[in-house]
Amino acid sequence: MDLEPSPLAQPFPTMPAIDGVTLRVARAGYKAWDRADLTYLELVEGTAVAGVFTRSACPSSEVEIGRDNVGKGRARALIVNAGNSNAFTGYRGREAVEQIMEQVAESLGCGADEVFVSSTGVIGVPLPKDKARAGVATVLSAQPCSWADAATTIGTTDTFAKGATTTAMIGGTKVTLNGIIKGSGMIAPDMATMLGYIFTDAAVDPAFLQQCLSAANEQTFSCITVDSDTSTSDTVLAFATGKAGNAPIGSFDDAGADAFAAALHDVCRQLSHLVVRDGEGASKFIEVSVTGAASDESARMVALSIANSPLVKTAIAGEDANWGRVVMAVGKAGEPADRDKLSIAFGGTWTARNGLPVEGYDEAPVAAHLKGQEIQLEVDLGIGDGRATVWTCDLTHGYISINADYRS
Amino acid sequence: MDLEPSPLAQPFPTMPAIDGVTLRVARAGYKAWDRADLTYLELVEGTAVAGVFTRSACPSSEVEIGRDNVGKGRARALIVNAGNSNAFTGYRGREAVEQIMEQVAESLGCGADEVFVSSTGVIGVPLPKDKARAGVATVLSAQPCSWADAATTIGTTDTFAKGATTTAMIGGTKVTLNGIIKGSGMIAPDMATMLGYIFTDAAVDPAFLQQCLSAANEQTFSCITVDSDTSTSDTVLAFATGKAGNAPIGSFDDAGADAFAAALHDVCRQLSHLVVRDGEGASKFIEVSVTGAASDESARMVALSIANSPLVKTAIAGEDANWGRVVMAVGKAGEPADRDKLSIAFGGTWTARNGLPVEGYDEAPVAAHLKGQEIQLEVDLGIGDGRATVWTCDLTHGYISINADYRS
Repeated sequence: MDLEPSPLAQPFPTMPAIDGVTLRVARAGYKAWDRADLTYLELVEGTAVAGVFTRSACPSSEVEIGRDNVGKGRARALIVNAGNSNAFTGYRGREAVEQIMEQVAESLGCGADEVFVSSTGVIGVPLPKDKARAGVATVLSAQPCSWADAATTIGTTDTFAKGATTTAMIGGTKVTLNGIIKGSGMIAPDMATMLGYIFTDAAVDPAFLQQCLSAANEQTFSCITVDSDTSTSDTVLAFATGKAGNAPIGSFDDAGADAFAAALHDVCRQLSHLVVRDGEGASKFIEVSVTGAASDESARMVALSIANSPLVKTAIAGEDANWGRVVMAVGKAGEPADRDKLSIAFGGTWTARNGLPVEGYDEAPVAAHLKGQEIQLEVDLGIGDGRATVWTCDLTHGYISINADYRS
Repeated sequence: MDLEPSPLAQPFPTMPAIDGVTLRVARAGYKAWDRADLTYLELVEGTAVAGVFTRSACPSSEVEIGRDNVGKGRARALIVNAGNSNAFTGYRGREAVEQIMEQVAESLGCGADEVFVSSTGVIGVPLPKDKARAGVATVLSAQPCSWADAATTIGTTDTFAKGATTTAMIGGTKVTLNGIIKGSGMIAPDMATMLGYIFTDAAVDPAFLQQCLSAANEQTFSCITVDSDTSTSDTVLAFATGKAGNAPIGSFDDAGADAFAAALHDVCRQLSHLVVRDGEGASKFIEVSVTGAASDESARMVALSIANSPLVKTAIAGEDANWGRVVMAVGKAGEPADRDKLSIAFGGTWTARNGLPVEGYDEAPVAAHLKGQEIQLEVDLGIGDGRATVWTCDLTHGYISINADYRS
């Protein structure tokens, strides 16, 4: 598939090195394509790990094994296979993952449970063990590559490479956080066909890293949706090498803990938005903010009902301020709402207030706003203090074109 | 909007008269279109009524008022406005409905609460009272028309008129049931942008009519989905004039009760399938059957998760037996499932069994099946006895075309 870059694409940022992380890519040939499809990130001894995973009832072996091992808190390597998700492949899929873990562990002299594996692509075809073995052998001795190379190699239907970087001060020590992510369709809470990886040179206890990642996930990766579909492989892992030399962070009582948590949240937010910006067929990036709900969680459910509504998404694709469809989506959410207290704004212009159209509202700024690429939709339910923001994209012919002939 | 008939359209059946029902249509001019848009069904004195309505938290005044009045059990008239749903129009919308009810009641010499009103079309624009008043005055004295005329007039984005008819024997008396329905998009449980009306000359107590309609709804209208969106106006009403002369049915102990309930279920099933066949942009009619679930309700939730998945629907549009996407949809349903017990069949050919692809399954019959217009998808969860069947259509470029420029 040769796709034009999404019109919402953003350039890959300049990403500094992270001390303790070495990146390599190789071509395993999982698919009949002429590109690298195997990514290897080697992590220095002592690296802490945390992770969040799909809540699918039918996860891949990679997810099952990763979920088991992440709790042990230590990682030495990450392998990402692109082109084959190895999901729904039973014991043969599991054997392929274990083979990769053992092969890398042997090379590094670490435990197999310190090697994390992700796979993304077609479901139901066992990852070919021979290609994996040869590919891993090649990648283990490949020359180090750039963050942009790694971000490109983990992608499948992605139309642009996605990365984010930021820094934080912990005591007097500057730490860096880099993230890369892939994902464009099958994106929905909880999470997405989304493989996201965050690396930092900060010294962070695994439990605190997990606490920060889980909290950030709730307001970032779990608040994006492209098509309401949730993959069997969604994974976000965070790795902290500790090479920056700060005093290790173990709780919010430690110096710099707040700054680190905020920086991690920022990287997660940036990465999650990039996934939406590569939503299959997306032409507009949509922020849906719900206020006045019965609770924050109720607000999130209403916001997701709006963000997942095909009729809302096609209306925005058509640059139509069709707030009637927003009312519909609020109504179907199954959350507390009162038709006669509901207010709706596009781009800051209220088109409906307290259950009635705003008569004679100025359509010009609304029309101008909808012609843009960044759409803001605000809904005030008028019944409480709950609030939430989610992000999605519009639904266009491009989505149909991409998904009606992906596998073949 | 001038749409080609759906490729899944079915011809309008030959519908007999129902004694006690007179049909009329007129042009109120709710939209700038050159067609009748106001439908009036006059019902003989003593007609019983039952109804099921949208569970939207933001229903229209028509739904609020209808829900209040249907419990009284008696109806003399039904008015359907097409082109304006009158939803989210506050007190002004309510006044328009009450005006129509009073105008018709005055003409018939009945109570206003015996006049049922539905409206369908754009949300958020109050139904214009002057057009409604003139339109109702015209339709009250119009010449009777056919069932096909009425079925056409209640439609909006529908591409073909939808009707169903059947008969049943109650004791020695033959009774007839006719149904008409509109709806094509914004179709989802619970129900749809769906206005459905069933008429019978059988004598049936209102409470029993309600019991039969509610039961049929659970397995028909609540088991169809086009785009997962639920309208603010969904309504199905059943009217029984009693003119056939059978001994009135009040419970399942009465003669002919089973036959009547089965006939009503049959009409509801036919009507619900016709709505799917007119799903916006539909090119394939899809039956999703789930067996082996923890319970019937769990099976229904899994089946709906599959039927609402954009990735499943686009795969079928692309005639791709992509059972991996089916696994994904099972996994995200949030219902009990076990990846390693899951089996999936297209058109009766099992492509995956017990969590593994069926090696070397014959792809020819699967490919041939997927090229057809009637797709059967079976999923066995292998963990219990629960089962359910739902119906949907594929997701195509046509859906985007229709919905990206509907309102303007």
